[in-house]
Amino acid sequence: MSTGLQVDSAGRLRHFLDVAGLKRQQLVEIMDTAESFSEVADRSIKKVPLLRGKTVVNLFFEASTRTRTTFELAAKRLSADILNLDVSTSATTKGESLLDTLRNLEAMHADMFVVRHAESGAAHFVARHAAPHVGVINAGDGCHAHPTQAMLDMFTIRRVKGEFTPLTVAIVGDILHSRVARSQIHALNTLGVRAVRVIAPQTLLPPQIEQLGVEVHHDIHEGVRDADVIITLRLQRERMDGRLLPSKHEYFQLYGLTETNLATAKADAIVMHPGPINRGVELDSGTADGPRSVILQQVTHGIAIRMAVISMVMAAHTGETTE
Amino acid sequence: MSTGLQVDSAGRLRHFLDVAGLKRQQLVEIMDTAESFSEVADRSIKKVPLLRGKTVVNLFFEASTRTRTTFELAAKRLSADILNLDVSTSATTKGESLLDTLRNLEAMHADMFVVRHAESGAAHFVARHAAPHVGVINAGDGCHAHPTQAMLDMFTIRRVKGEFTPLTVAIVGDILHSRVARSQIHALNTLGVRAVRVIAPQTLLPPQIEQLGVEVHHDIHEGVRDADVIITLRLQRERMDGRLLPSKHEYFQLYGLTETNLATAKADAIVMHPGPINRGVELDSGTADGPRSVILQQVTHGIAIRMAVISMVMAAHTGETTE
Amino acid sequence: MSTGLQVDSAGRLRHFLDVAGLKRQQLVEIMDTAESFSEVADRSIKKVPLLRGKTVVNLFFEASTRTRTTFELAAKRLSADILNLDVSTSATTKGESLLDTLRNLEAMHADMFVVRHAESGAAHFVARHAAPHVGVINAGDGCHAHPTQAMLDMFTIRRVKGEFTPLTVAIVGDILHSRVARSQIHALNTLGVRAVRVIAPQTLLPPQIEQLGVEVHHDIHEGVRDADVIITLRLQRERMDGRLLPSKHEYFQLYGLTETNLATAKADAIVMHPGPINRGVELDSGTADGPRSVILQQVTHGIAIRMAVISMVMAAHTGETTE
Repeated sequence: MSTGLQVDSAGRLRHFLDVAGLKRQQLVEIMDTAESFSEVADRSIKKVPLLRGKTVVNLFFEASTRTRTTFELAAKRLSADILNLDVSTSATTKGESLLDTLRNLEAMHADMFVVRHAESGAAHFVARHAAPHVGVINAGDGCHAHPTQAMLDMFTIRRVKGEFTPLTVAIVGDILHSRVARSQIHALNTLGVRAVRVIAPQTLLPPQIEQLGVEVHHDIHEGVRDADVIITLRLQRERMDGRLLPSKHEYFQLYGLTETNLATAKADAIVMHPGPINRGVELDSGTADGPRSVILQQVTHGIAIRMAVISMVMAAHTGETTE
Repeated sequence: MSTGLQVDSAGRLRHFLDVAGLKRQQLVEIMDTAESFSEVADRSIKKVPLLRGKTVVNLFFEASTRTRTTFELAAKRLSADILNLDVSTSATTKGESLLDTLRNLEAMHADMFVVRHAESGAAHFVARHAAPHVGVINAGDGCHAHPTQAMLDMFTIRRVKGEFTPLTVAIVGDILHSRVARSQIHALNTLGVRAVRVIAPQTLLPPQIEQLGVEVHHDIHEGVRDADVIITLRLQRERMDGRLLPSKHEYFQLYGLTETNLATAKADAIVMHPGPINRGVELDSGTADGPRSVILQQVTHGIAIRMAVISMVMAAHTGETTE
Repeated sequence: MSTGLQVDSAGRLRHFLDVAGLKRQQLVEIMDTAESFSEVADRSIKKVPLLRGKTVVNLFFEASTRTRTTFELAAKRLSADILNLDVSTSATTKGESLLDTLRNLEAMHADMFVVRHAESGAAHFVARHAAPHVGVINAGDGCHAHPTQAMLDMFTIRRVKGEFTPLTVAIVGDILHSRVARSQIHALNTLGVRAVRVIAPQTLLPPQIEQLGVEVHHDIHEGVRDADVIITLRLQRERMDGRLLPSKHEYFQLYGLTETNLATAKADAIVMHPGPINRGVELDSGTADGPRSVILQQVTHGIAIRMAVISMVMAAHTGETTE
């Protein structure tokens, strides 16, 4: 179902909504395209004229400075015109239905919507109802998916580790509420890693999580044993309300990453985090800033992945190739 | 008076403040210029280098995401640099007089002010006090005028109907508070339509409205009879306070456009609305999304009209032609 | 100390944090570069391609529409991509440490931070911790420094007066809380003016102000006698709380600039103000808009000075020259 919406009959990425439903070859193509854009960032003039005269709309129904910024930079480095619409605070659009907002932006010849929404499925809804000339990218929808984040994580892993098949990847934290974790699990399994583990207390795991193809661990020492990659998830402050978790302090005691509980991981294991970090909660500063950490590389690769996805989706609508 | 401020001795549009005072030939020139820009939107690269290095300032004393967005897109597609100043929320400029704000922006070499203000006459005030090198466009002032909205409506009518002279145009709704209606009535009469009708309860009509050259109707069935164009106005929610109108529901019963009360209009009559629509108030969804509706074309033409007006006003200040 | 951070071994301006610590020749070079950019503002196309593909981040921890706008215009006229981050209102970055914010923006390949902060020393902190490829410009930090404002003031004085050495310059107002005054005093003394005077009540003067190389006056008539340049400072409304000053009215009576108390100044004395003006407080409208006033020239020169500083700092990081 998702495939039909995302990929056209010629195999091109019409929208980028969810890692689930995409084939290995499609994920590899996204990473290969990002590879070619990584080189742009090292140039003196960090800009390519690929999307000159195209209009990309950041349609954010939920505020997120960081994600909006990365899409804005990616679009600008592709030479697109970018329009930031913070729909959460716009008085005019508030009284208007989502469909009327879409129709109006399309009538202004917007070429792409980058959609962030607190409700799961919002980006799919937009893609289903968008005009044929418009591409849609999911910049995070509810607890459902955050596919560009997952792909920048995959790209980071590939750049450091080379191959996916021999890897054991452990994801630590609030799997239950994490759109990032869902997208990562799909991507890692599609790319054929040896094992995906999730490490969390029972209260922060969705029911039947094993069906996504993961091993469940409640003990971090066991969970990271012999792992090649450890991905920590951001603990949303609004979850720390005493019902699911006693306190930040206790969370750190049980699941916070430190050199001590990383001792059982592979010697060359890398540590990842989607940011922004709660230091002393998901991991300590020694680990966040230590030699295993690739957290800032993730940020850098986030620009390249977003340039890749924007240009691929745009190309699927204009019939032009990205290279 | 208005003419003197808007048009220079060579007949060029120095400012665009009000449809009132402009001659038929000037309105036609705006539409002809918009016609040439409409084609830009269909290009792969929706951009012309006409205003490269020019600085357009969106000077909004009243928030309006939609209008600001259309001017921003129009300016970007002309390759201008655009500066969005939301003066309503700016702490720095709040303590400063309007004239000091103008003088400062002029000293920064702003080339154009697009002015939105809750008070009637604000754009004229700005134009009277602007430096000679600066053009001013009225993006809506109080209950007075919204000339780019009126011109995009005229452009939409011309694109569908071709000629103005045989047309009967009915405007339905809150004429009393509508800057859009005032500008439309002036434009329609200047372009020589056969008849302009206004349809509204007595409480939503200004006194002596007939002097603007309109027929007054209180009954919608009578008002739309044999009309070629029916323009619905947005009912401002803040007006629905029980004094002027009993309720949204009653308004819809009496003046809401439906297929039923459109039955007496011409078979090929078109329906317009400046947006955003209150569905089920000014018109029902069947009509808004139906075959008579040209509401989304209005949005599209809004970009072309704004590109036309911006480039014409800029050309009057630089001595260059727009083509 | 400051010198080491701001200027590299080849004498190039790596960061622009404070006028204090810079040599006369460096201040002259900034003004000479601004001179070459002043001419850009008079062109039909007010843009140079010097910083194409560079990313300048306006990192504002304290809101300031006016200063942000001038840096935004300066960066756009240099063809840079500009990212406005209003960190004071950003939910995402609020929970994050300043260093993590810097690291993330650097990882996105930001080339320059323009920093505004309510705390003294913030821009120095950012410069000390920024990555080697990143330049930092201080856009105002607490009561400490506002070096681009001081340099646009110097540039304005040089354009009108030609030479600094024969000049007597009087600074009137709240010296105690003014980052502008501190930077001006350093610049004027470095440029070798004959005398710098400060005119203020004892309550608005820092202790040992004489050590900065100024003459102290409490009487405005005495203070402006034979002065060539009179700089008024903005009285922050939040200071007018009854403790330091009885009232706006009394302040104006004692220290407000008028034609009357300017009578003792040189016949060709000029009057300056950093804006926005509180008319009837720091000076009356006759003086603000009169023939002695160069207040709007200051605004114009502010763009040229910021273009100069941005391009010089960028050049120090890329090894390219600004011309």
